[in-house]
Amino acid sequence: MSPRTPIKHLAPLEDGPVRVAGWVETIRDQKKVQFLVLRDESGAVQLVRPRPEGDDDISRAISGLSLGSFVQVDGQLKHDERVKLGGIEVKIDTLEVVGRSLPESPIAEDTSIDKRLDWRFLDLRRPEHNLIFRVQTTFEHALRTWWIEHDYIEIHSPKLMYSPSESRAELFQVPYFETVAYLAQSPQHFKQMAQSAGFGKIFEIGPAFRADPSFTSRHATEFVSVDAEISWIDSHEDVMRMHEELLVAGLTAVRERHGDEIEAAFGVQVTVPETPFPRIPLAEAKQIVAENGYVVPRADEDLDPEGERRISAYVKEKYGHEFVFLTDYASNIRPFYHMRHADDGALTNSYDLVFNGVEISTGAQREHRVEVLEQQAREKGLDVAELETYLEFFRYGVPSHGGFGMGLSRVIMLLLGLPSIREVTYLFRGPNRLRP
Amino acid sequence: MSPRTPIKHLAPLEDGPVRVAGWVETIRDQKKVQFLVLRDESGAVQLVRPRPEGDDDISRAISGLSLGSFVQVDGQLKHDERVKLGGIEVKIDTLEVVGRSLPESPIAEDTSIDKRLDWRFLDLRRPEHNLIFRVQTTFEHALRTWWIEHDYIEIHSPKLMYSPSESRAELFQVPYFETVAYLAQSPQHFKQMAQSAGFGKIFEIGPAFRADPSFTSRHATEFVSVDAEISWIDSHEDVMRMHEELLVAGLTAVRERHGDEIEAAFGVQVTVPETPFPRIPLAEAKQIVAENGYVVPRADEDLDPEGERRISAYVKEKYGHEFVFLTDYASNIRPFYHMRHADDGALTNSYDLVFNGVEISTGAQREHRVEVLEQQAREKGLDVAELETYLEFFRYGVPSHGGFGMGLSRVIMLLLGLPSIREVTYLFRGPNRLRP
Repeated sequence: MSPRTPIKHLAPLEDGPVRVAGWVETIRDQKKVQFLVLRDESGAVQLVRPRPEGDDDISRAISGLSLGSFVQVDGQLKHDERVKLGGIEVKIDTLEVVGRSLPESPIAEDTSIDKRLDWRFLDLRRPEHNLIFRVQTTFEHALRTWWIEHDYIEIHSPKLMYSPSESRAELFQVPYFETVAYLAQSPQHFKQMAQSAGFGKIFEIGPAFRADPSFTSRHATEFVSVDAEISWIDSHEDVMRMHEELLVAGLTAVRERHGDEIEAAFGVQVTVPETPFPRIPLAEAKQIVAENGYVVPRADEDLDPEGERRISAYVKEKYGHEFVFLTDYASNIRPFYHMRHADDGALTNSYDLVFNGVEISTGAQREHRVEVLEQQAREKGLDVAELETYLEFFRYGVPSHGGFGMGLSRVIMLLLGLPSIREVTYLFRGPNRLRP
Repeated sequence: MSPRTPIKHLAPLEDGPVRVAGWVETIRDQKKVQFLVLRDESGAVQLVRPRPEGDDDISRAISGLSLGSFVQVDGQLKHDERVKLGGIEVKIDTLEVVGRSLPESPIAEDTSIDKRLDWRFLDLRRPEHNLIFRVQTTFEHALRTWWIEHDYIEIHSPKLMYSPSESRAELFQVPYFETVAYLAQSPQHFKQMAQSAGFGKIFEIGPAFRADPSFTSRHATEFVSVDAEISWIDSHEDVMRMHEELLVAGLTAVRERHGDEIEAAFGVQVTVPETPFPRIPLAEAKQIVAENGYVVPRADEDLDPEGERRISAYVKEKYGHEFVFLTDYASNIRPFYHMRHADDGALTNSYDLVFNGVEISTGAQREHRVEVLEQQAREKGLDVAELETYLEFFRYGVPSHGGFGMGLSRVIMLLLGLPSIREVTYLFRGPNRLRP
C-alpha cells in the first residue's frame, strides 16, 4: 500500500519527504506559484509548487484540477510559521490525479438538508460530518467494551421474523418464499429468548425497521437500535443502573478522544454525567410540568415531546443533569410484556430515558411468569395464539429479566446538539427517502 | 440486583454464604439428602440439602422441581474434594423457584438439528452452544478493536435499498410506501460510498439477506456479514494484508480467552495463523487440484466446493496452513466492479479466502475509474441507467480502494469444526425456516 501519511500526523514529523493523499478543497492558481489545500479524513494541509517558466505537466495538471478530485502527492514537508493552516506545507514533487471530479459540486455549505442527503457522499466530506461518525465509532466501541468487560454475550438476532415483534402497526412485510416475513421493529423477542436460553447478559447493536409514515426530526423507517437484556434482576432499577454506567463509559470515551474537536466543530461540551441519574416517576414528572405552566394535551398518562423538553429543562436547572429517567409508566401506555408493580397493577416496572429534552430509550423489567404474561396480552386485546412462538420461551423456565432499547442516532444527535437524526445517520431512510 | 455469584467464580471463594442462580440440570431426590446440579451461563455446581424428617417447604419444592426450571439459591459454599463437579458444593439454605419449566423437555442431546432449531432457546442452554456465542463475541470484539486501533470508522449502512446491491437474483423485495425496496445482499454500494466520502477506512458488521433457495450447510437467507473497505490501495494485495492481520488479531483473542474450553468442548485446537497466508492464483489452484486427481466439473474458471476442500488440504499439507488466498479470479466470474489487471483484462485484482476447506470471504480492488466501470457493467449486460445512483459515487472523485466481505457464521463454524452454520447462528433463517 502507498505509505501515505494521514495529514494530522504531518505536524510532528521533521522536514523531509512525505506522501499525502486526499481530495482537493481549494486551488489558488497564481502566476508564480500554485497552492492547493488537500483534505483527507484526518485534516487539511497546504500544498505548494513554484510555477516553472512556460509550465510543465504538473503545473498544467494543477491548473486543470476540479475541486473534489482525489490526488496523491509526493513532496517535501516544511514547517513554516507563516502558513496559517497548521504551520506546515508540502512542496509538491509529483502529483497523481487518481479520481477526477466533475467540475461543479451539486451542493454547497448552505444547501438544504434534503438536497444534501441526495448527495450524501459529498455532504459527508465536510470535516464535522466525518467527526460525527468518528464520535459514533468511539461511543459504540466503548459500550461494547463495557459490556464485554462485564461478561455480556453479543447476539445477532434475525431481522426476518415470523410475526410482529411489537405491535401490528408500522410493519414492513416481506414476501418470503411461500409465506410472508416481517422486518423486526426491535430485537425484543430474541433478546428475551436469550434469557430463556440462560445467556444471562446480552447486547446487540443492529438495524430495526418501522413503516412509520411520520416526518419528525427523530424518526426514521430504519434505525440502529442499541439493546441489552439481563437476567436475575429485582426490578427496572437494576436495568437503569446498568444503563447509566454504560452511558458513562460511552461518554467518557467520547469526551477523552473527541472533546476538543466536538467543541470546535459544534460548540458543545461533552459532559460525563454523574451517577445515579435523576429518577422521577412519570406521574410526578407530569405534575411538575403542569406546575410549571404546561398541561400535556393528551388523554392518557403519557408525556408529549414538549413535556419531555420541559421536564428535561427542569432537571437540568434543578440537578444540573442532562439525563433523567422517567419511571413507572402506567400499564395502559406500556406493552403487555412490561412487568407491573406487585402492589399496583396500574403501574409498570419501566422507564424512559430522556437526554437533553428528547426520549432516547425505553427500558423495563419484563413479565416472566407466563400465565401473567398471557393474561396481560389478553387484556391488551392481543391474539394469544399468534404469540405462541414467543410465549413458548417462557414455558420451560426463564429467570427474571429486563433490558432496554436505545436509538443510536438520537444519542449522537443530542450529544452533538444537532437538529435532526438525518444529520447523524450515515444514510437516512424515511417514507420518501430510499436513496442513495 | 441480587448479588448472585456466577458459578465459575465460586471455586476461588472461601467457604461461606453465597447466592447462586440458574436452571436445574439434574435432581437426585434421595431419602436422606437431596442433590441438584444447577447450571448458569458460566458453569455448573452441585447443590445439596439434608432432608428433614417429615419434609418441609424446601424439600417439597425440590421434589416438585422440573428439570430446566430457573431457581435462585442462598446457601453455604463448601469445598470438598470428594465432589466430582469441581470439588465444591453449596448447601441450600433457601430456594426460590423463579421460572418453572414444563415437566418434559421437547429435545434431548440426540434430537435432530431441525427439531433442535424449533426449540433453539432450549438447545442453546447446552454449555458448548453457549460457548459458541462467547467465542463469537470475543472474535468480533477483537476485530473491531483492531480496526479502531487502526483508525477505521464504523458505519451502519441501510439494509433497505433503492436498487439491488449485487445481482438481481436472490433478492427480497419489500413494499415500501408508494414504491418497492430491496433488502441489501451486501453493504457493497455503501462501503464504496464511504470511500467517495473520504472516510478512508471503514468497517461494518451487520445483517445481509439473500433469497437463496438452497439448503447447503453454508447458506442462509439472512447472515451476518463482516465488511471492511479501505482507500489508497495499490492492489488487492493491500486488502489481503489487512485481512490476514485482522484474522490474526481475532484468532489470537479467541485462543487466549477460550482455547482450552474449545478444545474440551469441540476437540479442536485454535491455531493462530502465520502471516503472510499462502496466496495461490486461482488458475494455478485449479491445476494443482487437477494434478491431484480432481477435475472440477465446471465450464467456467471457478472452483467448486470439492475443489476448495482439495486445494485447502493441499495447502495444509504443503504449508501447514489452514488459510489460503485464491487470487486473480477471471473477469467473467467476478462482478463488474472488480478491477481488472492493467495488462490482462481477463483477470481481476480479487481473491477468495478459504479456511479449512470452505470459502469464507471474497475481496477485491474496486474499479474506481467511472468510465471503465460503466464499460465493464455494459459488458456484463447490466442496465447502466439503473446503476446511476451507484455510479454517481464515482463522478465527483474517489480514491483507489478495495475491501472484503466475510461470513461471520462460516468463520465460527470452521474455527470450531462444526458441520453447519445452523449450529453457530443464533437463529438460523432458511427457505423453510422463519421460526422461532
